Amino acid sequence: MTGAVGTEITDGVCFVTLAAAANGNAINFDLIDGLTAALDAVDADPDCRAMVVTAEGPTFCRGLDLEAFFVHGTLPDRDRLRRLPACLARIRRARVPVIAVADGEAMGGGVGLLAACDLVLGTTNARFMLSEPIVGLVPATIVPFLLLRTGPARLRAMTLSTRGVPAAEAHTYGLVDELVTDGVEPALRAQLQRIFRCAPQALAETKRYYDRLSAADLDQQIEIGLDQFTGWLTRPDVVEGVTSFGEGFAPPWFARYRGRMDVPGHSGT
Amino acid sequence: MTGAVGTEITDGVCFVTLAAAANGNAINFDLIDGLTAALDAVDADPDCRAMVVTAEGPTFCRGLDLEAFFVHGTLPDRDRLRRLPACLARIRRARVPVIAVADGEAMGGGVGLLAACDLVLGTTNARFMLSEPIVGLVPATIVPFLLLRTGPARLRAMTLSTRGVPAAEAHTYGLVDELVTDGVEPALRAQLQRIFRCAPQALAETKRYYDRLSAADLDQQIEIGLDQFTGWLTRPDVVEGVTSFGEGFAPPWFARYRGRMDVPGHSGT
Amino acid sequence: MTGAVGTEITDGVCFVTLAAAANGNAINFDLIDGLTAALDAVDADPDCRAMVVTAEGPTFCRGLDLEAFFVHGTLPDRDRLRRLPACLARIRRARVPVIAVADGEAMGGGVGLLAACDLVLGTTNARFMLSEPIVGLVPATIVPFLLLRTGPARLRAMTLSTRGVPAAEAHTYGLVDELVTDGVEPALRAQLQRIFRCAPQALAETKRYYDRLSAADLDQQIEIGLDQFTGWLTRPDVVEGVTSFGEGFAPPWFARYRGRMDVPGHSGT
Repeated sequence: MTGAVGTEITDGVCFVTLAAAANGNAINFDLIDGLTAALDAVDADPDCRAMVVTAEGPTFCRGLDLEAFFVHGTLPDRDRLRRLPACLARIRRARVPVIAVADGEAMGGGVGLLAACDLVLGTTNARFMLSEPIVGLVPATIVPFLLLRTGPARLRAMTLSTRGVPAAEAHTYGLVDELVTDGVEPALRAQLQRIFRCAPQALAETKRYYDRLSAADLDQQIEIGLDQFTGWLTRPDVVEGVTSFGEGFAPPWFARYRGRMDVPGHSGT
Repeated sequence: MTGAVGTEITDGVCFVTLAAAANGNAINFDLIDGLTAALDAVDADPDCRAMVVTAEGPTFCRGLDLEAFFVHGTLPDRDRLRRLPACLARIRRARVPVIAVADGEAMGGGVGLLAACDLVLGTTNARFMLSEPIVGLVPATIVPFLLLRTGPARLRAMTLSTRGVPAAEAHTYGLVDELVTDGVEPALRAQLQRIFRCAPQALAETKRYYDRLSAADLDQQIEIGLDQFTGWLTRPDVVEGVTSFGEGFAPPWFARYRGRMDVPGHSGT
Repeated sequence: MTGAVGTEITDGVCFVTLAAAANGNAINFDLIDGLTAALDAVDADPDCRAMVVTAEGPTFCRGLDLEAFFVHGTLPDRDRLRRLPACLARIRRARVPVIAVADGEAMGGGVGLLAACDLVLGTTNARFMLSEPIVGLVPATIVPFLLLRTGPARLRAMTLSTRGVPAAEAHTYGLVDELVTDGVEPALRAQLQRIFRCAPQALAETKRYYDRLSAADLDQQIEIGLDQFTGWLTRPDVVEGVTSFGEGFAPPWFARYRGRMDVPGHSGT
């Protein structure tokens, strides 16, 4: 456990709580260390049959902690950048089903974290936004996990639009597996009850077998994403923009659209 | 025709009815023989322009007949197990569009049967459930057909959750092509009328052409699925569990979740 | 600009209007020339940050202009047929995000045009129909663009059913990116405002990077589509049927379904 993440294994379920609500549960090394420790605990406990990831506060996860990654200290190198996708790959390959409860906003890397989980319960409070182009980045390191859920078309539209997608819509994109409208707890309990009726070895084999069928080599895809990301960070304008953001300033490309308000071919519809 | 399946070609349409309602239209060799005979009849009739698969009773198909496959007689070998996916491949490659009407519950192999059809009309009574892990199995032999419709993410979530997915949700997964809310008969009639306006050779070429474009070699995928399934059945604990189920007993992994009912980070929402 | 297409770059946005409403904005060489000229204008203007495609009249685009392609003059050869997918590929590879507003019916090639755009806003007036089999064709030349959005299962069902799919349903297929229910103009303005907050180079790199990740070689897929289409047009019955349609006659396969109206296993539900 770290300050950013709480972990408790009880009655065969590992409950993991993102607990840095004041920081919007931003992804930094504290959070990655906490998730990794939880995965270690699950590996060490053969009686554990499921892992549940929840978050405190209104934001599930606001994405990469730009201040930690870009402002303080030196620019993150490839090995430090790999720690997030490597942690997500461990979630995806965990022996037990990993359930995430999305009950707030998820941005950038936070969408990647949810995408890596096996079952995402999404409430009407959940919203998913790929905000990277606003910061001047491309969401490359989490793309392997997003693609496995959304496919290329949804990923492309989400990134180019930078629109916050509500849970019901994200459900049709494959980012939410079960849309929760009558309370998180009954839905989560029902899901845990279903998992406890299943053969644990059949669930573990399902995860392994489906990954074997997949054409994509996840580890290779992660390195391709790191190629893009580290290459992109060799551009001074990119680093300048991201650092501005981390320090609370607007980057030079930030503009207000003040153009025509009517749509050609439409009369005010 | 077998007892399990009724077949009638009339006015250019082959109507196939799953007629073993008392057995939940479970998939056994009677049912496979009946479907195969219907496909033979379509092949032999150049004036036939569509095939329609419906089911009697509240269950479209409850999946593999465990009693027939596992309890009576010896464990099914690879050739017997191949008969289901081979039949589904014939449905998919039929010259004419194959329409299925899902108006009840489909489980396991029953979801595979629907997935192999070209056009699935789903009513509000339809529900789709991949129940294999409850029995201790992985839905490997029907996976090639499920993947073609749902993609890997939905398949993974459906299998790991074993949740019954209602038709409206299954529609967004690609398991239902048209959501029917105003009666099966008008929707089916409208679909047949649209098919009768199309060039039969263009529809047949569409099926062939789109299959040529597909990266997946269906026959090879079927053998990979049989590898998993026959390999899995070499495990005594798996066979013991499946046989228990077929005999009406609960397998050893069947447990009730009695753990914490609150969700960390939530106060009763 | 051609008569079929209006183009205006103002305040950093290139507005392109399909202006041949009387002809249902059918795809002919005037329309392709107009779109190409608009793309040239965007390439020439480094300050342009987005392109918006709208249509006049109730039909966004009724598909290939059969009269222009098949009735007058000789049968289109491969190079002339390539002009549509080549134009769609330029839209997809444009430096800036291309937004389409679907506020009416799109058929055949018109669905392909929308699919090639980066962000499709769809109103409740929008409807998507792959009508090719009615004309005796397979939608091969636009398939590479459809597949990138819908995946193989939706494409197959849309083509075999020839059903007009409303916007809300098309949204779940990946043909619509944002469902617009409160007026086109606020939704379009909000999207342009989001784009103006993003780093233009990050948006351009997102398009390039995601295309690099894609397994499909778009140019190769276009040639495969042209193989099917030109091969299919060597069949006299196909050419006869398409030409009939272009001249306003029904082809020989056009039939009325008059068969049984009840559904086996159902009692009038």
